[in-house]
Amino acid sequence: MNAKQEIKALVFDAYGTLFDVHSVISICNQLFPDRGAALSQAWRAKQLEYTWLRSLMGHYEDFWQVTESALIVACQTLNLPCEPARRAQLMDAYLHLEPYPDVRPALTALADYSLAILSNGSPRMLQAAVASAGLEGLFSHVISVDEAKIYKPSPRVYQLASQKMGVAESAIGFVSSNAWDVIGAKAVGFWTCWVNRSNTKVRSSASEE
Amino acid sequence: MNAKQEIKALVFDAYGTLFDVHSVISICNQLFPDRGAALSQAWRAKQLEYTWLRSLMGHYEDFWQVTESALIVACQTLNLPCEPARRAQLMDAYLHLEPYPDVRPALTALADYSLAILSNGSPRMLQAAVASAGLEGLFSHVISVDEAKIYKPSPRVYQLASQKMGVAESAIGFVSSNAWDVIGAKAVGFWTCWVNRSNTKVRSSASEE
Repeated sequence: MNAKQEIKALVFDAYGTLFDVHSVISICNQLFPDRGAALSQAWRAKQLEYTWLRSLMGHYEDFWQVTESALIVACQTLNLPCEPARRAQLMDAYLHLEPYPDVRPALTALADYSLAILSNGSPRMLQAAVASAGLEGLFSHVISVDEAKIYKPSPRVYQLASQKMGVAESAIGFVSSNAWDVIGAKAVGFWTCWVNRSNTKVRSSASEE
Repeated sequence: MNAKQEIKALVFDAYGTLFDVHSVISICNQLFPDRGAALSQAWRAKQLEYTWLRSLMGHYEDFWQVTESALIVACQTLNLPCEPARRAQLMDAYLHLEPYPDVRPALTALADYSLAILSNGSPRMLQAAVASAGLEGLFSHVISVDEAKIYKPSPRVYQLASQKMGVAESAIGFVSSNAWDVIGAKAVGFWTCWVNRSNTKVRSSASEE
């Protein structure tokens, strides 16, 4: 059987795949003129690093806390003053990330499948982002790693989606812009689709497995 | 009791703490003029990222393989041609990293303690680096994560040092320049010492635990 015959559910990563994490650049630029892109890059890099390190240590904190810790350190690294009022403004931007323009048309075209989100985001963050982007009602499940208390790419996270949806791993198609997320999903037996949003020309060596 | 009374063994991280990973910049600059610092930074960042991702997925590969994969991707990202001959030269540099100038005097002054290395490096890489730096005979144990088949900061790595040395966690002082490594060691009950080689002024939020 091919993928189209086997796949019953499509599971989407959220940050970077449905929602543009770098849509925070505009508020970053308002608060720190001309430093928005650099801050957004550093913030995102630290955010991911903390999810991996905390998972590996077995010290889970939810994605809101991780995102705020990453923001504080990113600002310190770039010598940007980030007192509580500015921090609150920046964190609020994470609740209103812009969806990529192709997201709604794609989800609408795929409505014959069960559609779900599987994300590092905390339940509150995901609920806010979905509502803000006008994507409510499109997903049968919005699944947070918070139930597994570990971050991607732990196999436990991907298995959580299979369990919550009642669909076998081999009948799930997983869609992400993060290559390491695709590799993690593939490792548990999902079909996978890498959305190459950054036009990366290289293959990660890890993807050669 | 204070640390000085309790500590029986001192365990050192290798890469970035004893050995300067960025001493590869000179060979990088020979092969790719003016791009040495950028390549070294990208190489090191990918190297660490792959250790965390592979550990979290439960797909261990040894540090030589991880380091070579990271080199390939770092070169591709920076559009630097890295055919096998150049790659071999660059990888060889990892077997001859320069020790920081304070390393030998510090180890000599601390000779009353049992001294050890606990490192992500594969046994062959560590043996080569220690010999190349003229540090042979100073350590009672040179311990590689390879025995645990997972990378730092997994608690299993730090516990391995305690087991191999036959010294309780509470009697080990752990020394690293990597803040996340210090946090991982502290989490299993080691005394810790952060060597702030990059003059970082910020505290990682994770260090607030």
